[in-house]
Amino acid sequence: MKPPLRIAIAGLGTVGLGTVQLLQRNAELLAARAGRRLVIAAAAAREERRQRGVDLSGIRWFADAAAMARDPEIDAVVEVIGGSEGIAHDVVAGAIAAGKHVVSANKALLAHHGAALSRAAEAAGVALHFEAAVAGGIPILKALREGLAANNVTRIYGILNGTCNYILTEMRESGRDFAAVLSDAQRLGYAEADPSFDIDGVDAAHKLALLAAVAFGNAVDFAGVHVEGIRHVSALDIEFAAELGYRIKLLGLARLTPHGLEQRVHACMVPRSTPIAHVDGVFNAVVVEGDFVGRVMLEGRGAGAQPTASAVVADLIDIARGRWSQGFTVPAAALEARPAAPMARHIGAYYVRLMVVDRPGVIADVAAALRDEQVSMEQMIQRGRAPGEAVPVVLTTHETEEAAMRRAIERIDRLDSVLEPVRVIRVEAL
Amino acid sequence: MKPPLRIAIAGLGTVGLGTVQLLQRNAELLAARAGRRLVIAAAAAREERRQRGVDLSGIRWFADAAAMARDPEIDAVVEVIGGSEGIAHDVVAGAIAAGKHVVSANKALLAHHGAALSRAAEAAGVALHFEAAVAGGIPILKALREGLAANNVTRIYGILNGTCNYILTEMRESGRDFAAVLSDAQRLGYAEADPSFDIDGVDAAHKLALLAAVAFGNAVDFAGVHVEGIRHVSALDIEFAAELGYRIKLLGLARLTPHGLEQRVHACMVPRSTPIAHVDGVFNAVVVEGDFVGRVMLEGRGAGAQPTASAVVADLIDIARGRWSQGFTVPAAALEARPAAPMARHIGAYYVRLMVVDRPGVIADVAAALRDEQVSMEQMIQRGRAPGEAVPVVLTTHETEEAAMRRAIERIDRLDSVLEPVRVIRVEAL
Repeated sequence: MKPPLRIAIAGLGTVGLGTVQLLQRNAELLAARAGRRLVIAAAAAREERRQRGVDLSGIRWFADAAAMARDPEIDAVVEVIGGSEGIAHDVVAGAIAAGKHVVSANKALLAHHGAALSRAAEAAGVALHFEAAVAGGIPILKALREGLAANNVTRIYGILNGTCNYILTEMRESGRDFAAVLSDAQRLGYAEADPSFDIDGVDAAHKLALLAAVAFGNAVDFAGVHVEGIRHVSALDIEFAAELGYRIKLLGLARLTPHGLEQRVHACMVPRSTPIAHVDGVFNAVVVEGDFVGRVMLEGRGAGAQPTASAVVADLIDIARGRWSQGFTVPAAALEARPAAPMARHIGAYYVRLMVVDRPGVIADVAAALRDEQVSMEQMIQRGRAPGEAVPVVLTTHETEEAAMRRAIERIDRLDSVLEPVRVIRVEAL
Repeated sequence: MKPPLRIAIAGLGTVGLGTVQLLQRNAELLAARAGRRLVIAAAAAREERRQRGVDLSGIRWFADAAAMARDPEIDAVVEVIGGSEGIAHDVVAGAIAAGKHVVSANKALLAHHGAALSRAAEAAGVALHFEAAVAGGIPILKALREGLAANNVTRIYGILNGTCNYILTEMRESGRDFAAVLSDAQRLGYAEADPSFDIDGVDAAHKLALLAAVAFGNAVDFAGVHVEGIRHVSALDIEFAAELGYRIKLLGLARLTPHGLEQRVHACMVPRSTPIAHVDGVFNAVVVEGDFVGRVMLEGRGAGAQPTASAVVADLIDIARGRWSQGFTVPAAALEARPAAPMARHIGAYYVRLMVVDRPGVIADVAAALRDEQVSMEQMIQRGRAPGEAVPVVLTTHETEEAAMRRAIERIDRLDSVLEPVRVIRVEAL
């Protein structure tokens, strides 16, 4: 058997401790599958040797994670500190410069600095793997780089944030509104005290930027992601979605268009007949559409200590075996730098919800606004009657360019009989 | 760039031609991802140079596939002939003996001879990969060997036969009976003229034996698979399943039990709330339960020229990159040879359907038969009334040992008021 792979773990939060636990508990299995032992040689965290429920005896302790990453007795560094700058960046960049393989679960770091770091790793001849950074335990990056590598990917999309999916699922099942469900989710630990990273779509956008880069051989372009969250999704929208045969999901979607690489994260109306509509609760899923394989979906737990550790350690096994591949599939020099497709050029269908005064002529005004912008209506629902009072009206459109849709919405927003800002949710043809 | 990988294709049926098409159409992409060109150097098929809709000019033609497999100008052999014996076996064994890497889509061959062939490949230092043999385009073997390799797999199960899933889906959606749907499926090309390999569960059993071997590090044990098909599933069962909150799926399932490796293929009642219940039509899906990752599901097309070619070529890319892993994850010497767990020791719940004379006392007799074998009833449905005539009665049990269930069924079958053989479908807790 080859000599052990000596691993340093930078960060002993949830994921770091899960990784320690996995490496210890499944040590024999891992040695058989890796062809050598995976040994935790060192660890670093802010607070020294706090009791953490795992046995850290015999492991060298570093107060300075960056120093640990350069230590000559280390072969591979696991970075599970988090954050796009600062110490996490120092650890990863330093480890690569010192010729160490790196496994990172840090989506923010890779979304912002993945291109530069992968160039550095390539130059140093070391692995920079980050399976755990996208969709937790789901081995989607390996699937894109290897299992589905024979395909031109035509589109990729997924449920990339478990917090949002939990909230939207709960809203659907309970009929309650966003704020109530969010506060429950916080109490249950499914949402952070400051939930904005999740519910405003930033976390999903980090992951989408990585997925799109791997799938399309593009340099990571986080700045090119159009990002919206789920704060504006109401119980009423979820009810109408059901009536129209949809479910509302926060998706990240990417595809190549004539205008460049389209990357977008926002709430979507998803046909109930598609597999991803049935991915509920904290589960994540990613759908890959390839020119030969057709549609493939991978579903699993997108967060949590143990699923994330599963992905971290899978990367370590590949490194131990010497069968790691380039982080973004192809050499850095071969990565494209396509322009970001502007959202104004997006073509799609739309769900539009209005609160209007229930009186004759209102629908005619709305229809005229759509017509004036060449937007074609597919269906319209006005449920209940309350003459002279506010009632919701919902309509869906055929495919149209987003710029035209925005102009139509501006017109509608200006109508006297429209009482609240118009709500729009994109309808996806999946 | 490294020299090209010179590929020989043995068999130019649907999958062989799909593979040729993929290697030609995506040649540039494949070269970028493999770091070298994948070149079709030779091909062999029964009928020479029949027009096949792909360009075979410049490719060496062999009438004798086994001779081609030994040719010194070949680096890797793709075996897509099919069949567990004869020429397919000669090609694979001969290629390995001649030091060639092998990629096979042949589940029958691998289910019967996978252990011996993988030992031979290991001794020769060549790859024997067979991603395409299990669930077509879904990269499940790679996921088990690599992406989920950090986990002890606790259970694996899946929809492994698209023909059966198509038939069961159609039966559910149309309310028609098995024979009618089968004959439509044959007309549409979703079922073979002789459909027995598919509908009697043999094809799914081949795939399950391979999945179980890779997931549990066991020597392939096709003989140890308990196999039942779907011929006995009636429209009535599908209707009752819906009423009880289930869908009927042909699953292959494997897990380790105190009695050995349990491998079984049969129709199952699957709770409608589980993801696999929503995998419909010709789609396949595999669920892996791991001790750290939890539940992961992969879904996609399990057959067809293009999805299968996607899997074949992914294996070729790995070979071209030199990053292939052992076919069954660990060295042949490390594979276990666990006994097959007898079905009589299986513990599970059961759905039981009877046709009985509608008269007082019948249910009491049935209940007594169950009680006498210590089988606990969960619920019972008798819908409609037709005094003195035949009516269906359906019941479900709590978990019980299969041996006890079989004894209870024998008792029930002997009752005068029971008019047809009792139908039993296992209920799976997923």
